[in-house]
Amino acid sequence: MSTNVVFTIGRQFGSGGRQVGKTLAEKLGIPFYDKELIAISARDSGLSEALFSNADEKATSSIFYSLVMGNYPMASGALGVTEMPLNDQLFLIQSKTIKRLASEGSCVIVGRCADYILRDMDNVVNIFVHADLKNRVERAVRVYEVPENKAEDVCLKADKQRANFYNYYSDRKWGMCRTYDLSLDSGMLGIEGCADQIISFEKLWRAHKGQGI
Amino acid sequence: MSTNVVFTIGRQFGSGGRQVGKTLAEKLGIPFYDKELIAISARDSGLSEALFSNADEKATSSIFYSLVMGNYPMASGALGVTEMPLNDQLFLIQSKTIKRLASEGSCVIVGRCADYILRDMDNVVNIFVHADLKNRVERAVRVYEVPENKAEDVCLKADKQRANFYNYYSDRKWGMCRTYDLSLDSGMLGIEGCADQIISFEKLWRAHKGQGI
Repeated sequence: MSTNVVFTIGRQFGSGGRQVGKTLAEKLGIPFYDKELIAISARDSGLSEALFSNADEKATSSIFYSLVMGNYPMASGALGVTEMPLNDQLFLIQSKTIKRLASEGSCVIVGRCADYILRDMDNVVNIFVHADLKNRVERAVRVYEVPENKAEDVCLKADKQRANFYNYYSDRKWGMCRTYDLSLDSGMLGIEGCADQIISFEKLWRAHKGQGI
Repeated sequence: MSTNVVFTIGRQFGSGGRQVGKTLAEKLGIPFYDKELIAISARDSGLSEALFSNADEKATSSIFYSLVMGNYPMASGALGVTEMPLNDQLFLIQSKTIKRLASEGSCVIVGRCADYILRDMDNVVNIFVHADLKNRVERAVRVYEVPENKAEDVCLKADKQRANFYNYYSDRKWGMCRTYDLSLDSGMLGIEGCADQIISFEKLWRAHKGQGI
């Protein structure tokens, strides 16, 4: 097994999961990929960033909607794969980018089904960051400047979209304990505490590696 | 806030969650309650251990079944509460025992909705221990001597019963990340590693306490 480790981070909206990943990457001195994946996938494929940005963490729309919008099936096959909804094609391209980045060395990848995409690698630690709604609403207002009277709705809808995306492209369930190796309440530990807890997990995992329960 | 901490541990069957709790309690030098709760609840209430043992982590049967079995509604009101299924009455008695034990000092409590029962206390850390089915089956055969060809079925059915019990008596969902403060894959860390990771969590939580995300 490689001594490199890829940390994937799923997260509830407003839980600070992105910031946990960033702090973890800084502490370990390794690359961090979140929205960065959009630009890299665009560069890898020669397609526009806007295309990836628009599809980011969204499951393919219903076939009916896709037909109406004219993106199912692909009329031109411009992306090299025909008869496949646009979002699915973009997902495949982004998957390749994620696999390439993961093969290049230790890193932190936020969202985008990275845990599922990298399921055949043995040097991946899959994490989920969550927090109670009160804490998330507070953070959404403070950090993302979401209007206070809309913050709860924004959190719940974002989570629903992330769950839909994840459950559509994987055979796992978003937000279930068994989907991840470690899940953490960021309201209990804070951003820095979560990053430290993940570092502790990685050390214990390396010490135990492969010995089962 | 008290400096005492109560650790509650939910667990998939075969994940070694009970052993994680026992190891944690030994490391911290605090009491450990799993099956022990049956004898204590019996002593507290003056009822027989067999009664609690039979109802242990089982949700109330359907009303139809209860009627057939003659335990709904209680004919005699022998337990001091009438018109309530037997298992619900035993659950209430066990809840009182759990609250009393938790109020007496630091301890580890396995299963039995303890996290939900203690939801109004602020010195509780709620943990879920899980592992992939392969590891759990292996452990069930090795530790509980479950026949190899039945082990998978035993694991899945036990989980189903635990989920039913938990979801029936709480307003939370068994096995969902957001139900717990920390969840861990025991196949990644082993028993000892899980206990150490929980101790690390508690330290980071004490340091951060109450500051939100």
